[in-house]
Amino acid sequence: RINSDRLWDSLMEMAKIGPGVAGGNNRQTLTDADGEGRHLFKKWCEDAGLEMGVDEMGTMFARREGTDPDALPVYVGSHLDTQPTGGKFDGVLGVLGGLEVIRTLNDLGIKTKHPIVVTNWTNEEGTRFAPAMLASGVFAGVLDQNWAYDRKDAEGKRFGDELARIGWKGDEKVGVRKMRAFFELHIEQGPILEDEEIEIGVVTHGQGLKWLQVTLTGVEAHTGSTPMPKRRNAGLGMARVTELVHEVAMDYQPDAVGAIGHMEVYPNSRNIIAGRTVFTIDIRSPDKEVLDEMDARIRDGIATICEALDISFEIEQVGHFDPVTFDEGCVKAIRDAANRLGYTHRNIVSGAGHDACWINRVAPTAMVMCPCVDGLSHNEAEEIYPEWAAAGCDVLFHAVVETAEI
Amino acid sequence: RINSDRLWDSLMEMAKIGPGVAGGNNRQTLTDADGEGRHLFKKWCEDAGLEMGVDEMGTMFARREGTDPDALPVYVGSHLDTQPTGGKFDGVLGVLGGLEVIRTLNDLGIKTKHPIVVTNWTNEEGTRFAPAMLASGVFAGVLDQNWAYDRKDAEGKRFGDELARIGWKGDEKVGVRKMRAFFELHIEQGPILEDEEIEIGVVTHGQGLKWLQVTLTGVEAHTGSTPMPKRRNAGLGMARVTELVHEVAMDYQPDAVGAIGHMEVYPNSRNIIAGRTVFTIDIRSPDKEVLDEMDARIRDGIATICEALDISFEIEQVGHFDPVTFDEGCVKAIRDAANRLGYTHRNIVSGAGHDACWINRVAPTAMVMCPCVDGLSHNEAEEIYPEWAAAGCDVLFHAVVETAEI
Ligand SMILES: NC(=O)NCCC(=O)O
Ligand SMILES: NC(=O)NCCC(=O)O
Repeated sequence: RINSDRLWDSLMEMAKIGPGVAGGNNRQTLTDADGEGRHLFKKWCEDAGLEMGVDEMGTMFARREGTDPDALPVYVGSHLDTQPTGGKFDGVLGVLGGLEVIRTLNDLGIKTKHPIVVTNWTNEEGTRFAPAMLASGVFAGVLDQNWAYDRKDAEGKRFGDELARIGWKGDEKVGVRKMRAFFELHIEQGPILEDEEIEIGVVTHGQGLKWLQVTLTGVEAHTGSTPMPKRRNAGLGMARVTELVHEVAMDYQPDAVGAIGHMEVYPNSRNIIAGRTVFTIDIRSPDKEVLDEMDARIRDGIATICEALDISFEIEQVGHFDPVTFDEGCVKAIRDAANRLGYTHRNIVSGAGHDACWINRVAPTAMVMCPCVDGLSHNEAEEIYPEWAAAGCDVLFHAVVETAEI
Repeated sequence: RINSDRLWDSLMEMAKIGPGVAGGNNRQTLTDADGEGRHLFKKWCEDAGLEMGVDEMGTMFARREGTDPDALPVYVGSHLDTQPTGGKFDGVLGVLGGLEVIRTLNDLGIKTKHPIVVTNWTNEEGTRFAPAMLASGVFAGVLDQNWAYDRKDAEGKRFGDELARIGWKGDEKVGVRKMRAFFELHIEQGPILEDEEIEIGVVTHGQGLKWLQVTLTGVEAHTGSTPMPKRRNAGLGMARVTELVHEVAMDYQPDAVGAIGHMEVYPNSRNIIAGRTVFTIDIRSPDKEVLDEMDARIRDGIATICEALDISFEIEQVGHFDPVTFDEGCVKAIRDAANRLGYTHRNIVSGAGHDACWINRVAPTAMVMCPCVDGLSHNEAEEIYPEWAAAGCDVLFHAVVETAEI
C-alpha cells in the first residue's frame, strides 16, 4: 500500500501554489503559478531520484530506471494545470499519485524491470488555450505542434510564447517516447461512484467530445429607439443556441451532455443590442453516432435561428475527440488490482476528457478513478477524502508494478 | 440660420478625441478622453466669450450673459460622453449645436434678454456607470448625489473618485440653478424620420425605462461528467431570461421594446457549467402601465425559470424613469420654429432616454430631433448628413432665441 499521509501532504502542498478565491486553485496553464508548480514537482522528483526530461510542448517526464534499461517504460501521470476556478485534485492527484507510486517503490526498495516515468502533460484543461489535452494530443500525433504553438488566449498571447516565457519549453522532440503502457489516476468528476458507495472506477471507455466555437454577427443598435422588428440581435441568437444545445442534449441523455460555458458579448453595454457574440458549444457522448447526430442537429438549428433573426454565423471546431475504448489488458490490470486489494469497484465511462484519451492511440492505456464529493469538479469546492485518494493510488500502484514487472 | 460648416467642423474636431475602432468614438464618461473632450469644449466656450461653471457632478455650464442678468437663463445642451462603441453625434450634436446657437448670436451681434447657458451633462450613456443620465438625475433631485458617487464601473472604480481623478469635480452645488427652459437637440437614434423623409422630429414624449440587473446563481460543474439532470446551469437560465424579455416586448410592441445587451458569465470556461451570470434587462415603453406590466411579467418569469433550473436569483433595479410628457410651451416653440423655417416635421416619441427627460421635472423642457442614417445609433457606424444637423440646429436656434427674447 502507498503512504496515504504523504500523498495527501503533497496534494495540500501543491494546492498552495496558485490559490483560487474560494479554497480551490487558479493555476492555469503557462501562468507563473504553473511554472512554480512545475518547479515544486521537479524538486520532488529529484528528491526521489528521478531524471527529468521536458519536451518541446513543456510536458515533463520523470524517469525511474528499470533493471532492464532497454525495456519499454511504463508511464503514469496526468496534469498539474487547473481551471480558473478549479479544484485541488483534478489532474494533480494523477501526477502526485504517480510520484507516490515511485516513493513507495523507493521505500520498499523494489526495482522493476521496466523503467517507470511520471508525467505532467501541459495544458490539459483547455480554458486558457483551447483545445483541452493539447500536449498529449500533439504527443499522440493528432494535433499539429505548430498549430498548438499558435493557439491564443483571451488576451491574444500565443501558447508557444507563453511556454517559452515561463521557461518550460524543453528540447526533446514531442512524441518520440515509446510506452509499454500509460496509466492515469483521476477523480471521477461525476456523482456515480459516490452515489453507489463504490471505491474504485475501472474506466473502460471515455466519451467523445466536440467544441464548436460560434460567432454570431448582428448589428449594434440602441436598445431604446430601435423598433423590435428592425433588430438583428446577436445576444438573442446566443440565447436561442444555448437553449438548442440543451434541448438536443436532453433528447439523447443519459447518453449525451451539452452546454455552453463560455460566452462573450460585444460591446456588452446595457443599452446596446449585441452586435456580435462569441461562445463555445461543448457536446459529448460515449457513442460516436450520437455525437455526430447532435453536431448535425445543432448546426442545422443555428442556421435556422440565424435566418429568423437576420444575423450571420460562423462555426469553428476548436476541439474534438472520438469516444475512446481503453486497452483491455490495462483495464484488466486495474480491475485485478482492485480485486486483489479488496476495494469495491465498477466499470465506468469517463465523462471528462483526459490525456489518457489521446495516449490510448499510441500506447496501451487505462484509467483508474476515485469518487469526489457530490460529483463536483471544475469548482473550487471540489473535494475528496484522503482514504479515497489512497484507494485510487493503491490500485494505481499495483497496476503499474504488475505491468512494470518486478 | 446657423453656420452649418462651422457646426460640422466642430463635430469632426471633437470626434478626433477618444476615437473608436471602426470610425466612431469611445469617449466613455470620466475617462481621460472625456477629460480631453471637456477641455476642448471649454476652450471653444471661452473663445465665444462664455463663462464656465462646473458643478459637483462635473456638469459643465457655459453662460452667455443676457441684457437682464436677473432674468432666468434658457438652457440648451446634451452630453459629450459616448458609448464604448459609440457614434460621433449621439449627445455631441446637442452640446455643439448649443454652442453653435451662441456663435451665431455672436456673429449677428444679437443680445437676448435672458442669459443662455450651454450644458454638458456628465455620464448620460450609463455604460461605464449605471444608470444613464446620472448627473441630470441628480440635478433634478431624483437621484442622490452620494449614491451617484458610489456607482462603480466593471473594474470597481467609483464614479466620485474617477470624477476627481480627471479633474472635473466642480464646487458648484448640484441642482441650484433655476431655468426658464431647457432645450435639447439630439439625433433620433431610430428609423422613423428617415423612413418618412421628414427633417425635424418635434419630441412630445419620452419612453419610460427600467434597467433590472439580474444575478443568477447555480453551481459550477464539469460540462462533461455532470449528468444533465444534476445541472444547475446559470448560463441556461440567462438564455431563458433573454428569450423571455424578447417575448414580453414582442407582445406589447410597437408600444414596447426589450433586450439584454449586458451579460457576464462566471467563470466563463468552455468546460465549466456557469455557476453565476450577471446581466441587465432593458425594457421601455411610452406607457407606464405597459412598462409596469412588463416588469411584473418578467419578474414572475424569472422566478419560474429559476425554479425549473434549481438556481437562485436576485434582481436589482439599476435604472428607472417614468414616461415623460414634455412641456407644451417648449414643444410649441420647436414646432413654430420648424414651421417658420419651412422644415418638414412630425411629432415623435423619444425611444431613448435623454437628460431632457430628467430636466423636464424641474424646468419647462422639450427636444428637437434630426434623422440618422438607417436609424442606427450606439454603433460606431452612426451617421448623419450636415444638412440634417443644420436643420436641427436652425430649429434649436429659433426656439432658444424666441424663448430667451431679443
Ligand atoms: N478532466 C478534465 O476536466 N479535463 C478537461 C477536459 C474536459 O473538458 O473534459
Ligand atoms: N440617448 C441615449 O442614447 N441615451 C442613453 C440612455 C438610454 O439608454 O436611452
